[in-house]
Amino acid sequence: MEVCDLPICIDSSIIEALEAGLSAYEGKALVNSVTAEEERMERILPLVKKHGAAVIGMANDETGISMVPEERLALARRIIERAADYGIPREDVIIDPIAMTVAADPTCGVITLETMRLIRDTLGNNMTCGASNVSFGLPDRATVNAAFLPLAMNAGLTCAITNPLVPEVRRAVLAGDLLLGHDEYAMRWIASYRAEVAATKAASE
Amino acid sequence: MEVCDLPICIDSSIIEALEAGLSAYEGKALVNSVTAEEERMERILPLVKKHGAAVIGMANDETGISMVPEERLALARRIIERAADYGIPREDVIIDPIAMTVAADPTCGVITLETMRLIRDTLGNNMTCGASNVSFGLPDRATVNAAFLPLAMNAGLTCAITNPLVPEVRRAVLAGDLLLGHDEYAMRWIASYRAEVAATKAASE
Repeated sequence: MEVCDLPICIDSSIIEALEAGLSAYEGKALVNSVTAEEERMERILPLVKKHGAAVIGMANDETGISMVPEERLALARRIIERAADYGIPREDVIIDPIAMTVAADPTCGVITLETMRLIRDTLGNNMTCGASNVSFGLPDRATVNAAFLPLAMNAGLTCAITNPLVPEVRRAVLAGDLLLGHDEYAMRWIASYRAEVAATKAASE
Repeated sequence: MEVCDLPICIDSSIIEALEAGLSAYEGKALVNSVTAEEERMERILPLVKKHGAAVIGMANDETGISMVPEERLALARRIIERAADYGIPREDVIIDPIAMTVAADPTCGVITLETMRLIRDTLGNNMTCGASNVSFGLPDRATVNAAFLPLAMNAGLTCAITNPLVPEVRRAVLAGDLLLGHDEYAMRWIASYRAEVAATKAASE
């Protein structure tokens, strides 16, 4: 709070740490995360409600991470319903459809993308994910991540967890917006390009 | 034929030039292109059949290029049907759903992607397009083209007209294959990375 005016995401699997963070924080926090495990939902969702926070709901439960998109969708729905039971509105539940590396299983990418489409088309919640997970263990991760982001945006991802300071990633998001109709007359694309050229020129002087 | 063993694409809007090229060529050529205009189909499709060639069918007609994906689909279907009337099998008709620059109209990208999905899901033909058209008039075209290719591959594009010597474009196609489940254990991605590193090292020695 002392060093940043942007909203803070409190990320811990330790519930006491989440509680301490939420109690100390003065803005509207985002809690990362709750799974569809009943025991986790019972402990975390009341905290989220009490502090007026938003929460990331991970589409897995105590049985692990399903490789069937419809099953991840069902878990997402369960979290949203349980959150509603605690009085947390739908717009405060951001679903994480779960991204995993294609290095381990070549179907991981398409499963995540299909899960995103299902969640967008049937639930409509905002979605986040650890977007760079898709390239874990691979060389030239920035290029893989850059290719993934427009695909994920097209499938319904609204707010990736990713590093905007990586030039390839930042440009991929801008190019995705441009190609998907969210950057009229390419104004942001062109402004960003000019800013990069100006920064490069300033650095070389 | 003297300098390249790969199949040749004969590209002309002048029918006499197509005929001369097809007559001289000894392999199976690809003709670029025929539109859904009856007069063009009547003149070009018999040539394609006579020479056992394949043909690119552009999803536009004498009224121009529609901005309604279903209308482009209807034109693609018309070309495939007319080709069948001339005895040209479906696999020899490659549909171009038409890519245009998002600099002129922000909906151009999503219209092309939706047309691709419709053609893939209802016709199933192979598809090509001038993939770099999407970035015409914009700065840093390589990055926009690189973002477009995985999106288009995901929507059904099977053989882009693009420049594989542009590193961003080549890597985007490899990353698209990787993320869309067509590169098991990332073997091609890793091999390509190693080859690039080796080439860079060799060039610096």
